[in-house]
Amino acid sequence: MSILVVGSVAYDTIKTPFGKVEKALGGSATHFSLAATVLSSKLNLVGVVGNDFNDQDIDFLKKRGVNFDALIRKEDGKTFFWEGYYEYDMNQAHTVTTELNVFQDFNPVIPEEMKDIDYLFLANIDPDIQLKVIEQMKNPKLIVCDTMNFWIENKRDRLIEVLKKSNVVLLNDGEARELFNTPVLMKAAYKVLDLGVDTVVIKKGEHGSLLIRKDSFFAAPAYPLEEIIDPTGAGDSFAGGFVSYLEKKDKITDIFLRQAVVYATVVASFNVENFGTKGLRDVTFKDIEERYKELYRITKFEELL
Amino acid sequence: MSILVVGSVAYDTIKTPFGKVEKALGGSATHFSLAATVLSSKLNLVGVVGNDFNDQDIDFLKKRGVNFDALIRKEDGKTFFWEGYYEYDMNQAHTVTTELNVFQDFNPVIPEEMKDIDYLFLANIDPDIQLKVIEQMKNPKLIVCDTMNFWIENKRDRLIEVLKKSNVVLLNDGEARELFNTPVLMKAAYKVLDLGVDTVVIKKGEHGSLLIRKDSFFAAPAYPLEEIIDPTGAGDSFAGGFVSYLEKKDKITDIFLRQAVVYATVVASFNVENFGTKGLRDVTFKDIEERYKELYRITKFEELL
Repeated sequence: MSILVVGSVAYDTIKTPFGKVEKALGGSATHFSLAATVLSSKLNLVGVVGNDFNDQDIDFLKKRGVNFDALIRKEDGKTFFWEGYYEYDMNQAHTVTTELNVFQDFNPVIPEEMKDIDYLFLANIDPDIQLKVIEQMKNPKLIVCDTMNFWIENKRDRLIEVLKKSNVVLLNDGEARELFNTPVLMKAAYKVLDLGVDTVVIKKGEHGSLLIRKDSFFAAPAYPLEEIIDPTGAGDSFAGGFVSYLEKKDKITDIFLRQAVVYATVVASFNVENFGTKGLRDVTFKDIEERYKELYRITKFEELL
Repeated sequence: MSILVVGSVAYDTIKTPFGKVEKALGGSATHFSLAATVLSSKLNLVGVVGNDFNDQDIDFLKKRGVNFDALIRKEDGKTFFWEGYYEYDMNQAHTVTTELNVFQDFNPVIPEEMKDIDYLFLANIDPDIQLKVIEQMKNPKLIVCDTMNFWIENKRDRLIEVLKKSNVVLLNDGEARELFNTPVLMKAAYKVLDLGVDTVVIKKGEHGSLLIRKDSFFAAPAYPLEEIIDPTGAGDSFAGGFVSYLEKKDKITDIFLRQAVVYATVVASFNVENFGTKGLRDVTFKDIEERYKELYRITKFEELL
């Protein structure tokens, strides 16, 4: 088994009430990989970086077994750069600058040897590119996709095509409401299922997440943290936990999907406890297991009244 | 065992995207009683109504065994009246008018025979009045209190005194954040526990609720509804379910508290499915039990990864 992730590798400048980092390694594919490699040793990253990219920044990911053979290095531009800040309400990121740079013309070509990979994660990128990636793949067992409000507002039709071809759709609550113009998350989720999607996961930040399928509904709380230092990458690390758990089990059952959501919840909780990629660098499976068990205790109650 | 509730009996004019009701029976003590009497047959209501009050409006509560001996009828004023509306985001009530009327000088005198009641619910009223009620009671097993942003902003010190004397404090998420000026709910909850409170329940509307104690933390999702018709009284019916469940068990254990939260969640879910008191009028224990079991299934996942 192995995983393919297509998304951004970036430099982020982030300010939160707890501090600031400048040009730290970030990007959706990076956060995803960091999270997924706690469990998975077969992860392949497709992305693009520019002439300012420092290879040492991804050394720790290489050491964790991430295959960067399909990382494009462009000498005629700079790496995707994002600058943003959070106020005390950490649910809302405020963008100062987005410089797409080499990411602007990102045209992922999937190497022949990666086309038969079973687990595909399409991070938040242009739906047209997501579709091009899907077309290149042979017959993945599981396609999980992410998106953002920008694509909902500007490329809704193409995005709907991506969703139709995906098995699992990850959305945050704001995106879910916006996608089908309804304040009711359950309604939005059922509209996604109507497209033929097997599973919708709605991420609600501090309020946990929902897993909605045709015949099953699951709700998981967030892992209770007293201090959130930097929420950047929380969604991508959630996705990394989610996909890697399913790859490990290599079977998509309702029970495994539920466990994948809880596993992902825990992984994301470590991500937000430090700036950028720091939160997850040294996390082990055992650390995750401990918090997973705590979430089990947190949600436990008796079946009979 | 029996329950004493002190709060408002009111007439509400409510508009939501789904319709409107005019001068319908409402008030915190009413919603609480309606919810609590599904399980409890010994409920005593202390409140005040005016010369416009129609006794038939509470006939259905009398039939359910609610004791109104301590309901004061004032002939020199009108019943507490609230008019408000909700937009599509049902988490936010918009007040058009609040006419306190006879409620303005509400000075609850607890009849002698009610002073040794074990389960006391102090609905959202002036903390000074809540304190006066507590003083009159002999030695209740459980004091549960509710409040609102108005008292946090205008009578914070007195409110803190009420909390100190309560065993269980119910807050919605906005109130919890405001009370201790922190965006982090867990921090706010621990500050309440520091006052000597045994249990804090934070109600988050569609995002479920949290039960926080010194050595225990529990998170319950909301019951998933596709349509919310009128959220008025959701918090009070939650309280009614919560207190009546504990009165029935007559033992305050961690397990029963968790079950009380889930039971309360279900009761509130029926409340919001129709206008005013209509949602809960015909609900039976069996109806609640069914949704309770569904919540059990919704939150279930395996203990081992």
